[in-house]
Amino acid sequence: MNDKAAIEGALTASAQAWSRDDLDAFMHCYEDGPETAYVKSSGVVKGYRAIRDMYAARFGGTSGALGQLTMETLDFKPLGLDYALVVGRYHLKPAKPGPEASGVFTLVFHKSAAGWRIISDHTG
Amino acid sequence: MNDKAAIEGALTASAQAWSRDDLDAFMHCYEDGPETAYVKSSGVVKGYRAIRDMYAARFGGTSGALGQLTMETLDFKPLGLDYALVVGRYHLKPAKPGPEASGVFTLVFHKSAAGWRIISDHTG
Repeated sequence: MNDKAAIEGALTASAQAWSRDDLDAFMHCYEDGPETAYVKSSGVVKGYRAIRDMYAARFGGTSGALGQLTMETLDFKPLGLDYALVVGRYHLKPAKPGPEASGVFTLVFHKSAAGWRIISDHTG
Repeated sequence: MNDKAAIEGALTASAQAWSRDDLDAFMHCYEDGPETAYVKSSGVVKGYRAIRDMYAARFGGTSGALGQLTMETLDFKPLGLDYALVVGRYHLKPAKPGPEASGVFTLVFHKSAAGWRIISDHTG
């Protein structure tokens, strides 16, 4: 499997985990370390643990409550052998009737011994 | 000069060019190629030329009309030898009296023969 397919597979698995409210499986795509960063308009959430806490506040523990998440790749670029850049768009179909949410993201992946993991996520 | 200093120097020069409405000097920090990408909430602007056109629509040609732009680095990470990740915040003090604008960005820099240049910019 090439790098792009491996990374897109990790994102698909993560989106499927979101869609069934499985926080641990959803977080699997992030590198477990203090340097992993989530960037949003209000600033930077630094470290895997803080990012997990941020998401935990949203996860309800009821299967499907968060809605159905899918992601599409808009741009993919290898950055040397051990890093890769992914620009994409997410679509979130709410569990309750209502409009779909959508947004763009820029992800930097790092190829660690465990596989490809996100070290930087800018969403919004 | 180390990579972080070189990159921050390029960003400072670019912000100073913005502040005097010098589009060509402002664009100097972007890699001049078809793959350079600018990501915003509505999608991806692809290619140096399209990014320049996007900014050209904002530049007024009157010195200082765009306001005073400054940038601060929130996070810096080398991605191998030829790429680097910069997360930062911009501050734009308007030329006319009014509130300062501010936002975060994620930049991926590439070390080319010409020096460090942005290949991906996600602002917002």
